[in-house]
Amino acid sequence: MRKNTCLSLFLSLAMLVFMNACESPSGQNQPTSTAETQEAPEYAIVIHGGAGTITKANMTPEKEAAYNQALNEALDIGEEVLKNGGSALEAVEKTIMYLEDNPLFNAGKGAVLTNAETCELDASIMDGSDQNAGAVAGVKYVKNPIRAAIAVMKNSPHVMMAGTGADQFALEQGLDTVPNEYFYTERRLEAIRKAKAREEKTGMIGQRHDEKYGTVGCVALDKNGNLAAGTSTGGMTNKRWGRIGDSPIIGAGTYADNATCGVSCTGHGEYFIRYTVAADVAHRMAYLGESVEEAANFVINKKLVEKGGSGGLIAMDAKGNVAMPFNTEGMYRGYARPGERVVKIYGE
Amino acid sequence: MRKNTCLSLFLSLAMLVFMNACESPSGQNQPTSTAETQEAPEYAIVIHGGAGTITKANMTPEKEAAYNQALNEALDIGEEVLKNGGSALEAVEKTIMYLEDNPLFNAGKGAVLTNAETCELDASIMDGSDQNAGAVAGVKYVKNPIRAAIAVMKNSPHVMMAGTGADQFALEQGLDTVPNEYFYTERRLEAIRKAKAREEKTGMIGQRHDEKYGTVGCVALDKNGNLAAGTSTGGMTNKRWGRIGDSPIIGAGTYADNATCGVSCTGHGEYFIRYTVAADVAHRMAYLGESVEEAANFVINKKLVEKGGSGGLIAMDAKGNVAMPFNTEGMYRGYARPGERVVKIYGE
Repeated sequence: MRKNTCLSLFLSLAMLVFMNACESPSGQNQPTSTAETQEAPEYAIVIHGGAGTITKANMTPEKEAAYNQALNEALDIGEEVLKNGGSALEAVEKTIMYLEDNPLFNAGKGAVLTNAETCELDASIMDGSDQNAGAVAGVKYVKNPIRAAIAVMKNSPHVMMAGTGADQFALEQGLDTVPNEYFYTERRLEAIRKAKAREEKTGMIGQRHDEKYGTVGCVALDKNGNLAAGTSTGGMTNKRWGRIGDSPIIGAGTYADNATCGVSCTGHGEYFIRYTVAADVAHRMAYLGESVEEAANFVINKKLVEKGGSGGLIAMDAKGNVAMPFNTEGMYRGYARPGERVVKIYGE
Repeated sequence: MRKNTCLSLFLSLAMLVFMNACESPSGQNQPTSTAETQEAPEYAIVIHGGAGTITKANMTPEKEAAYNQALNEALDIGEEVLKNGGSALEAVEKTIMYLEDNPLFNAGKGAVLTNAETCELDASIMDGSDQNAGAVAGVKYVKNPIRAAIAVMKNSPHVMMAGTGADQFALEQGLDTVPNEYFYTERRLEAIRKAKAREEKTGMIGQRHDEKYGTVGCVALDKNGNLAAGTSTGGMTNKRWGRIGDSPIIGAGTYADNATCGVSCTGHGEYFIRYTVAADVAHRMAYLGESVEEAANFVINKKLVEKGGSGGLIAMDAKGNVAMPFNTEGMYRGYARPGERVVKIYGE
C-alpha cells in the first residue's frame, strides 16, 4: 500500500516536473506577457507602475503619452546605471526614485491619501545576491521611501521599520525629508473626498475592486549577474488604522534571490500577503523547476484568480527572462535589455 | 542540448521527489524533535514560548517548574477548547491569550522593553481553512494583541495594521485596553537598562545572539480538520525606529493552510523575514512533497543554520503530525493530542 502510494506519487510528480521543464517554451500555455531569452543579456531591467482598470476607453491620448513617456524615462535611468556597470540595487533605487518623484504614480509625490488626508508611504527592497532586505511602512516625511528601505537594509540590524520610528531613522540617516503636503496632488485630494462621500453613503471602506492599484516596482539584473527588486507605494485610498499592504512585506510584495528571480507586485495587497505571492513565484521555480514565466503566470492568473485577488507582478530571473502577468485590464509596465525596449499599458 | 538538459533535470528531480516521498519515514535523517501519526487524531495542539540560550546550567529548579507548569496550563486551555468541539482559531486565541497574560513569556504582560522603555507588541493569526489572516504591529494599549490580530482578520478588509492606528482599531472593536505600564515587569526593566548600558559602552544595538527570543505561538487542529496558527511577541529588547520583526508578518512568523500545515516561528526575526520561513515550510510540503517534519527540519536546521539565523518553529499538518525543530540550545515547547502530552524545554 505504502509502496504503491509512493510509486504513483513518484510517477505523477515526475510527469509534472517533466511537463513543466520541457513543454511550456513551445507549448500552448505560454503566457503572452513574457519574453524569454536563451543567453543571459549583459543587463536587464523591468518595471511596473501599477495594475487595475486601465483601458483605452478610460484613457486620453495625452494621458497615454504621459505614461508611456514616464515608463520610458524610468527605464532610461535604470539602463544608464546598468550599462555603466552599476549594481542592480542602484538601478532599482534610481528607477524607483524617478517613479516616486513623478506625480503620475501612487508612490512618493502623487501618493493616494489616507482617511486622515495624509500620505503614508511604504517601500521595500531586496538584494538577490545575499537576500538582505529592507522595508519601511507608514512613513510620512522621507521624500523617497525606497531610499529609506535601502538605508534600513544597509545601515541597521533590522529588515523592517514602521511609522514615526522609521521616519526618525531616515532623518538620522541624512535622507531628504519633506512636509507631508509635498506628496499631495489635486487628483488624489479629489479621490479621497469622493471615497469618503461614498463611504458615508454606502459604508464601504477602502477601494473599489475596479480601481487602480498604483504601486510602482522594479527588478534589475546587473553585469555581475546579481538581481535586486524593489517596490514603493502610497497604499490604498482612504486607508486607516495604520493599514499595511503587501508592498513593504518581504515575500508578499517584494522578493529577490539570484538562484530564482526578483519580483515586485502590485494589486489588492491583502491577497498578496495571504498568498505570499512574491515568495511563491520564487519557491515554485526552486522546488517545481518552473520557469519564471510559468511560476509568475500560475500565481497571478490561476491561484490569485481562483481566490479573487486582483493585480499583477513583474519578475525576472538571473538570465534576464522577464514575466509581467496581470489579471486586471491593464498594467503600466516595460522592460529593457541591450538593444531591446518594450513599454505597454493595456492587455494584449 | 535543450532536450538533454530537460532529461537530466527530469531525472534528478524525479530522484529527489522519490527520495523525499519514500525514504525519510524509516530513514536515518528523521529529526528527533518531531512526532508522526498515521491516522489523524480527533484534535491536536502545539505551542512554543520562545527559543534561545535555554540550558539546564542557567535554569533554577523553580524556574524550570514554573515554565513546565505554564506550558502545561496553556495546553490544557487549548485542549479544552478543541475537546469540546471549538475551532482551531478559538483554541489558538485562548492559548495565546494565556501565554500573553503570563509574565514568564515575552508577549503581552512580561514583554521586553523598547529603547524608549515602552512595550510595543506584535501578533498575527492565520486560518488554514480559508487562508484569511490578520496582524498588528507595534501596539501599545491592547491587552491581548492576538485578539487584535483576530479582529483585523474578521472585522476589517485588511490583513495588517500598525502603531496608533492598530490600537485605535482595537479600541473601536471593544477589546480590553490597558495603560502601557501594565505590560512592564521588574525583570524586563532590568534587562533594558543593562542593554542600554552595554550599548553605551560597545555601540551594539539590539540583542546579543546568545539571548532568548521570547515569542509565543500556537498551532491547533480542530475536530473539523481545520488548522490555525498564531504568534505573539514583545519583539527585541532595546528595539527602536518602529522595528517590526517576523511575528506579525504572514509567511515569515506565521502561516496556515489546511493543504499543508500551520506554522509559528520564534527567533532572530530578520532572518525569518528574509527567508520567509513559515511559508517556506508550507511550500516545501506542497511542491517537494516533504512531510511537515522534513520541511520544518530542513528550513531550521539546514537553511537557517547555513545563513546564520537562529531560532525555531512549531508546525503541524492536518493529520496532527507535529514538528518542533530549533537550532538554539533550547525552546519552550509542547504538544497535546488525545491521551498524549509532551512538554520540553532543552535540546534532546
